[in-house]
Amino acid sequence: MSDKFSISPTEITRLDGEESSSRPDFVSVEEPLEIQLLLDGQASPKSISVTMRTPGNDLALAAGFLFTEGIIRNGSDIHTIHANTDPNGNRLCLEIDPKISMDLSKLERHFYTTSSCGVCGKASMDAVQQQCQIELPKTLWKVLPSTIYSLPGALRAKQANFQQTGGIHGCALFDLSGNLIFSAEDVGRHNALDKLIGYFLLHAGSGLPLSDDLNNGDSFSTNVPSIPLSEHILLLSGRISFELVQKAAMAGIRFIAAVGAPSSLAIDLAEDMGITLVGFLRGDKCNIYTHPHRISIKAL
Amino acid sequence: MSDKFSISPTEITRLDGEESSSRPDFVSVEEPLEIQLLLDGQASPKSISVTMRTPGNDLALAAGFLFTEGIIRNGSDIHTIHANTDPNGNRLCLEIDPKISMDLSKLERHFYTTSSCGVCGKASMDAVQQQCQIELPKTLWKVLPSTIYSLPGALRAKQANFQQTGGIHGCALFDLSGNLIFSAEDVGRHNALDKLIGYFLLHAGSGLPLSDDLNNGDSFSTNVPSIPLSEHILLLSGRISFELVQKAAMAGIRFIAAVGAPSSLAIDLAEDMGITLVGFLRGDKCNIYTHPHRISIKAL
Repeated sequence: MSDKFSISPTEITRLDGEESSSRPDFVSVEEPLEIQLLLDGQASPKSISVTMRTPGNDLALAAGFLFTEGIIRNGSDIHTIHANTDPNGNRLCLEIDPKISMDLSKLERHFYTTSSCGVCGKASMDAVQQQCQIELPKTLWKVLPSTIYSLPGALRAKQANFQQTGGIHGCALFDLSGNLIFSAEDVGRHNALDKLIGYFLLHAGSGLPLSDDLNNGDSFSTNVPSIPLSEHILLLSGRISFELVQKAAMAGIRFIAAVGAPSSLAIDLAEDMGITLVGFLRGDKCNIYTHPHRISIKAL
Repeated sequence: MSDKFSISPTEITRLDGEESSSRPDFVSVEEPLEIQLLLDGQASPKSISVTMRTPGNDLALAAGFLFTEGIIRNGSDIHTIHANTDPNGNRLCLEIDPKISMDLSKLERHFYTTSSCGVCGKASMDAVQQQCQIELPKTLWKVLPSTIYSLPGALRAKQANFQQTGGIHGCALFDLSGNLIFSAEDVGRHNALDKLIGYFLLHAGSGLPLSDDLNNGDSFSTNVPSIPLSEHILLLSGRISFELVQKAAMAGIRFIAAVGAPSSLAIDLAEDMGITLVGFLRGDKCNIYTHPHRISIKAL
């Protein structure tokens, strides 16, 4: 199933203990796909969805999406698929049998981009930069490799629900010495990060956590830092998508570490926004994808 | 961070080799959360998002979502949060500073439920049952434990992109003897499943795969089965959410096996739709959450 569009070469800094080396690697491609429907009697197609996907099987993705969302009942409900109506190959237009009655109201999806020049990762990144207007100071600090390696264990120790279920995403914010400040869990990884960022948003300046459902009875000895969280480390328990980097960027986070792999567009956005991105953080090894200057490393 | 609402007790059948035993277990709760905004001068609130989440830190989730989507800039932009405006505790209404100008057009999200009696897992399940009108025959077949244990290895062998990147979701459809028919990969797990279902939708009855981007050069010796895929096994490389069971149900799939954990609502929907749900499929062990009658098991 591999093809040249679904994986992308990248250059990483491999960190093993305290020693580092550069090497080539591959990451999964993430790019937006816009699905349009051309409806009976209408001159121009209607956008119904933009999803972040890995290119490949795009026709099947569009057909499957329409089917599993209950818009079409059979493959034959699709009359024609116009592929590549966009210079980047990220848009499909489907002509649907005019006899099919469609309730499109349930298909109003979140749009990452509304660029008139095409749907692409670049436009998605520009949209984030436009929204993300936080002015951040230059960071002069560096994090020790040993601090980075200690983060997953500290999150796991706090993840009460993961310990009992083995199935929930977690994320946590640490100070630069690796002290955990707050963590959140959710079946949806974007929700876990929204919970974490929302916590700091609501507690900013209050000094002590509110005694509501936000902290679930946890107590904290530190003051709660406010957004922008530019002097901290965000740890994610899973993989790193474009959307997660986008959310972190909105909160001014400059350092993201994750147990899993990043997508191509997550790396591109982190590079662009000046965020250090670390993946495959397991044991005393990890990959550094962007801005390694914030890590104290010895070159081999 | 654990509390009584974010995990839920369940009864599982643990399969170890060919022997089975019943035991209590815990799963992560998944329930919809509706976020509403009360805008200046409007009498009734406007729904802007329904997300499937794990209860807990709901206020932070709503605040973080509004912030990371660029709707608010500070915690103080939220004047009041009205929690529990719904009998199930799954709805929050936020009053926003009327001076904030909001572009709500970018927030049109997918709605799972529009039930007037409350937002809850039950309403989400009813919505799936209403949409899923496939009449399925009673299944008389049983799958051998050894067949189930062989599935993850067969998928991994096909997952060319995973082998090169270590970071992509995969899913595959197998016949009841464990022969892989088609597999798909994507950075988004819902996309991978849409690609798989879309493949069968577009190939139904054609006998041979089309020579387009759908198969990426793979060749198949079997005829392509059509939807409903009720005599097959779906394998997922990760965790099982409500949305994935919903998509599988739409395609008439009766047997879902996954390497990861299911959520509470995924189990409820599988139970309701008569789908056998297997999780934590690793080595020659797995958990059976629903409808174990489709597996040849020996009780201890």
